[in-house]
Amino acid sequence: MSGIHVIDETRLRKAVPLDLAAVDCIDAAFRALTDEGVVMPPVLSMHLPRANGEVDIKTAYLPGFSGFAVKVSPGFFDNPARGLPSTSGLMILFSAETGQVQAVFLDNGYLTDVRTAAAGAVAARALSRKDAKHVVILGAGTQARMQLQALTLVRPVERAVIWARNAEKAAQAARDCAENLGIVVESTTDCEGTITGADIIVTTTPSADPLVMADWLRPGQHVTAMGSDQPGKSELDPACFKRADLYVPDRLSQTRKMGELRAAIDAGFVVQDRDFAELGDILCGSAPGRGSPDDITIADLTGTGAQDTAIATHALAAISTRGNAR
Amino acid sequence: MSGIHVIDETRLRKAVPLDLAAVDCIDAAFRALTDEGVVMPPVLSMHLPRANGEVDIKTAYLPGFSGFAVKVSPGFFDNPARGLPSTSGLMILFSAETGQVQAVFLDNGYLTDVRTAAAGAVAARALSRKDAKHVVILGAGTQARMQLQALTLVRPVERAVIWARNAEKAAQAARDCAENLGIVVESTTDCEGTITGADIIVTTTPSADPLVMADWLRPGQHVTAMGSDQPGKSELDPACFKRADLYVPDRLSQTRKMGELRAAIDAGFVVQDRDFAELGDILCGSAPGRGSPDDITIADLTGTGAQDTAIATHALAAISTRGNAR
Repeated sequence: MSGIHVIDETRLRKAVPLDLAAVDCIDAAFRALTDEGVVMPPVLSMHLPRANGEVDIKTAYLPGFSGFAVKVSPGFFDNPARGLPSTSGLMILFSAETGQVQAVFLDNGYLTDVRTAAAGAVAARALSRKDAKHVVILGAGTQARMQLQALTLVRPVERAVIWARNAEKAAQAARDCAENLGIVVESTTDCEGTITGADIIVTTTPSADPLVMADWLRPGQHVTAMGSDQPGKSELDPACFKRADLYVPDRLSQTRKMGELRAAIDAGFVVQDRDFAELGDILCGSAPGRGSPDDITIADLTGTGAQDTAIATHALAAISTRGNAR
Repeated sequence: MSGIHVIDETRLRKAVPLDLAAVDCIDAAFRALTDEGVVMPPVLSMHLPRANGEVDIKTAYLPGFSGFAVKVSPGFFDNPARGLPSTSGLMILFSAETGQVQAVFLDNGYLTDVRTAAAGAVAARALSRKDAKHVVILGAGTQARMQLQALTLVRPVERAVIWARNAEKAAQAARDCAENLGIVVESTTDCEGTITGADIIVTTTPSADPLVMADWLRPGQHVTAMGSDQPGKSELDPACFKRADLYVPDRLSQTRKMGELRAAIDAGFVVQDRDFAELGDILCGSAPGRGSPDDITIADLTGTGAQDTAIATHALAAISTRGNAR
């Protein structure tokens, strides 16, 4: 098929694990986002009320990357009743020089899971204390598991707690993570009690109401909020913006619209046009990160087409190196 | 690969010819466009100045169609110097019920060529005189050839003339068409002289300056302008809007922005918010078409995501029927 790689989910799961190489590739994506040659159009969103579905299309051109990805992510919410997952989709990698198709990744969202978890590790590596040992994860789904795994790649995590409203789901996620990661992982339904003892807190829920209250936060903590990716979702009490010493968006133009920043602006805690350095600026050293071990830092991750371009480029390299090419 | 069809250009050229079935499928797309359940977002356009390229992404959900397509069309203008075509790309067909990927068509724009030519036939079948025998095509590229072929499917074409500024290219296109279609095809570089004698005129150029002047038009003629698909392009003298009895856009919201209508509005011949019935309205009988054999009619085709969804659905059916499935 004229040199085009067509790779399915099973092969991608083997060839593109969530490892330090994936984290470094997403780190490079955030750095590249600071280049003025980046082209990242707004997400194309198509709502399909008759099918109870929606389709999001993301893309980004990053200077220095040999390809650019186009990702199509359908979400069809009647699927579970049919025994199918709600989300599916694929990524296509094009040559950044000629526009020709290089690879089609029929990943059903797996590469998105990896690049999203890797971004959590990049944020923690840039912002959390180097000695962070105790992690709390809010949520018990795929990202809860993968965010915890990603943190173990960059910090000396010894103990984790998984919180969910549903005790059984939290316990199951904790068992899975303990077995997979070889660390102590507990579960709880007590949010306040567990957050106060954490070094790193990662929120992974689709909650529309705050889960983390400002006065629960303690000096030295780092919070990564990655659950909110739509206007109307929010996991942090807007007062966290007053309590924190540093707020870091993945992409300011996006977090203003659909991140935790949106809720903080709506609540009057932040003015609409206030400027914040992005994660890429801190990675590149053009903006300061954590100032002291006692600072409270917040990373607001909404997900970017730049991450898709980076993980797709990384996946093609991994597939080619492994001699797995079609 | 979990039931997903991955089909390359060579197989698509065999399985999806430009025939009456393709024309009827695009006819159905135009009719479906009149349904209020249609969801057709604006085109996502990404300009890549550093690569001298651009990428367009189109999609549309059409009630009554079992799938919806997402089309990615890259154009990289330094490619010819590398011995590669400027344009490439692919279409992906998703289930309209579950959002799951059904097929990936690595067509390099072939399905777009077919659906674009088929739209010309749909417009001519709806608007031109039934006895139209003499066709003039402006331009000598792929669409010039395919528009002429498409017309022979719906009208008793006996004779055609291909006009281009470059006499050699016009002559080559004429020879190719004569051989392929078994009709008389001549070539010319005299635009005015050839247009006055035509029953159907199709403009297929990327011209930014008018090629067809209003006072060259004769009673009974039908004009399809399909070359302009960007603001700044225009093939018809804006005064043609005064001379014509009927103007028919493929999608009014698009032709206002980037069709012949754009130039006519800019020239003051049409007011910005003037309403026009679309081709689909005429096909469905909810708006009148040609009123008399002496009417002059103009169809303005800019290309829609609806056509992509229709041709992709048609292609999957053709592939499946032929037992060509992967």
